[in-house]
Amino acid sequence: MPTWTEHIFYKKTGRIPSPGDVVEVAPDLVGFHDLTGYHVLEVLEHMGKVEVFDNEKVVVAFDHLSPPPNQRAAEIMVYIRRHVKSLGLPHFFDVGGGILHQIILERYAMPGQVIFTADSHGNTAGAVGAFAHGMGATDIAAALKLGKTWLVVPAPFKVEVRGEFPPGVMGKDVALHLLGQFGAEGFNGYSVEVFVERPKVFPMDDRATVGNMSTEMGADALMFIPDAVTAEYLKTARGVDYTPPSLEPGNYADKYTVELGRLEPLVAAPHSVDNVKTVREVEGVEVDQVFIGSCTNGRLRDIATAARILKGRRVKTRCIAIPASYEVFKTAMKLGYIDVLTEAGCVVTYGTCGPCLGGHFGVAGPGEVHLTTSNRNFKGRVGHPEAKIYLANPAVAAATAAEGRIADPRPYLKH
Amino acid sequence: MPTWTEHIFYKKTGRIPSPGDVVEVAPDLVGFHDLTGYHVLEVLEHMGKVEVFDNEKVVVAFDHLSPPPNQRAAEIMVYIRRHVKSLGLPHFFDVGGGILHQIILERYAMPGQVIFTADSHGNTAGAVGAFAHGMGATDIAAALKLGKTWLVVPAPFKVEVRGEFPPGVMGKDVALHLLGQFGAEGFNGYSVEVFVERPKVFPMDDRATVGNMSTEMGADALMFIPDAVTAEYLKTARGVDYTPPSLEPGNYADKYTVELGRLEPLVAAPHSVDNVKTVREVEGVEVDQVFIGSCTNGRLRDIATAARILKGRRVKTRCIAIPASYEVFKTAMKLGYIDVLTEAGCVVTYGTCGPCLGGHFGVAGPGEVHLTTSNRNFKGRVGHPEAKIYLANPAVAAATAAEGRIADPRPYLKH
Repeated sequence: MPTWTEHIFYKKTGRIPSPGDVVEVAPDLVGFHDLTGYHVLEVLEHMGKVEVFDNEKVVVAFDHLSPPPNQRAAEIMVYIRRHVKSLGLPHFFDVGGGILHQIILERYAMPGQVIFTADSHGNTAGAVGAFAHGMGATDIAAALKLGKTWLVVPAPFKVEVRGEFPPGVMGKDVALHLLGQFGAEGFNGYSVEVFVERPKVFPMDDRATVGNMSTEMGADALMFIPDAVTAEYLKTARGVDYTPPSLEPGNYADKYTVELGRLEPLVAAPHSVDNVKTVREVEGVEVDQVFIGSCTNGRLRDIATAARILKGRRVKTRCIAIPASYEVFKTAMKLGYIDVLTEAGCVVTYGTCGPCLGGHFGVAGPGEVHLTTSNRNFKGRVGHPEAKIYLANPAVAAATAAEGRIADPRPYLKH
Repeated sequence: MPTWTEHIFYKKTGRIPSPGDVVEVAPDLVGFHDLTGYHVLEVLEHMGKVEVFDNEKVVVAFDHLSPPPNQRAAEIMVYIRRHVKSLGLPHFFDVGGGILHQIILERYAMPGQVIFTADSHGNTAGAVGAFAHGMGATDIAAALKLGKTWLVVPAPFKVEVRGEFPPGVMGKDVALHLLGQFGAEGFNGYSVEVFVERPKVFPMDDRATVGNMSTEMGADALMFIPDAVTAEYLKTARGVDYTPPSLEPGNYADKYTVELGRLEPLVAAPHSVDNVKTVREVEGVEVDQVFIGSCTNGRLRDIATAARILKGRRVKTRCIAIPASYEVFKTAMKLGYIDVLTEAGCVVTYGTCGPCLGGHFGVAGPGEVHLTTSNRNFKGRVGHPEAKIYLANPAVAAATAAEGRIADPRPYLKH
């Protein structure tokens, strides 16, 4: 039996290639956003006529600097809109639609697809078992024009997930645990396949977080093997019937087991994603701003978790909460979460990357400490290079906002 | 009997000065925000010790570039927070509190007070009959240090408001009508006193819009003579008992009467605040973005009006809706307006000036047409100098968002 990676490459190439082989692959979806889209289109212009292989297979979303915080960002949007219009791209999400990766997950990605994005966190779609891979603008431009590109076939790496999440532990902690164990870039050259022993314990939103942060692990892709949760998600979110494959164990380059029951809430401390510590080790560090959102942790379960902790409380530090898409915000509003977060004193909006990349809407100042649910804590990532950034899950973020210092969320989740 | 202006100057100086006199006045409140606060504090540093005449009389709010869209804005906030802390200023509103002028109106301003702000739209507090006046950072720094500053006494100008608002006409149209009649700077050297014949027809939120835009008219101040609506507002918003004065006609330099019943929805067309036309004259102009918010029109009645029109509809252009303060947003959320606006496709957040000044959160790109409820439409004001800006009330803005082109709101308000 092939691995899920081999299964996908077989579907695409008609053969089961070996790790290290260079193969040509036709993508099922290609995505870009405002910040990279400009370069993608510029490269297409340099290549001659701006054209794409299949309008139906292109997803464009404005998210990084949206709504535009400066003239340059606004100018880029005007430029991209013009091309989107003349190309007649139907899957275009202007200001307020949402973060590209969340939109692809919510609306388009299917198990076994190959997805390329002009952004490193396109692998979020690995949550539904898509082989999703970020690339530079030039490669994306070529893929868009030709309808294919080359890949070095990665070696499959099996991660088995056993047990269930203890209170206060989420998908983010699985990502941080893997980063702690294997280091940043530890999965370079690998396609990570995650098997969840008891699918129901690992919700889709948490899977998206792990897929998303496989970028920080250096993985070529990270895919959750489609299971009952995948099928349920596709049915609920899109009304699509999907039958998960019944996979037998394939041949893996390596394996690792995550025992969820042994995890506790983790953080990545400054200034590296693999500087992983338990939240207990850094408890009490004073924080200037908490950010709950991003393509890593801006989904409904993230917002619900934060709301559960902040309900009836008042934040003791600045707190920015940004659901990752229009759909997430609307649902969160209907369920009362936006009300709770606002009542607690969080500044809310939706569908933008905002402070994750130090782009706008909460950029860090000198000397500040930020705790964020996003994916990177390198120096300068959220703004000033003299700021310190901690990464954590939304439960830790909410507890930290409630206390004004890094806090363990577990006491808040006891009742 | 003195005019309201003379009454205020009498209280402050012990005599009734003549227009043109230079007098020293002690302010009851002094306010600054992030963008000007930096300069105010820098000047105070240059003057020696950073100190203020009375901690209780200083209001600071982060609004212009809040949450910070870039490192410089974040840096400025870190700097101001440090001074606010060491001065021990109790009336400090960090990111998410709201726009300075709205906060002063909601929480502090009283009839007959003298209020100085390091921002030209501090005159918003004229809505409750405060003599509110914007100044440069250096003057504000001096006033903060000394607890007084000099003013050239303005000549009182009486505006009588008769009748009641026709559907789709709001305070904004009174402001635009005055701009059309008297021109930008037309009230230079005047203190405009507005007498509302039937107080109940002119809500506080609409009064704030007129006060706010008296800057564009060049007025030294614009004050609504305190009446039953003022008393009711102070009671409801702050639990304060206030008895309006019974004024007899004083001696005015000039007079003008506004017949509300003769007004219709107006716009200021590019590129000047006094390029005033009826909405019918510009109906059909395609619009790229609508902005509902700002210190001019980000209050509850503004949001309620927009929500009434957009309920059950879907915007056909980008639409950004930003209630002016935390309190307005919370109330609007409880009343279901935020839900309606989101459902219609507006991007929402709160408590920031955002695109009004082209600062962030919806800056204009080249060639774009923006219709905004804010106060200025000069070239480049909301971003790119090649953008065109129309000013209008929130009803016009909502109808325009619903149609994607400038629209008359009256057909939407018929039922």
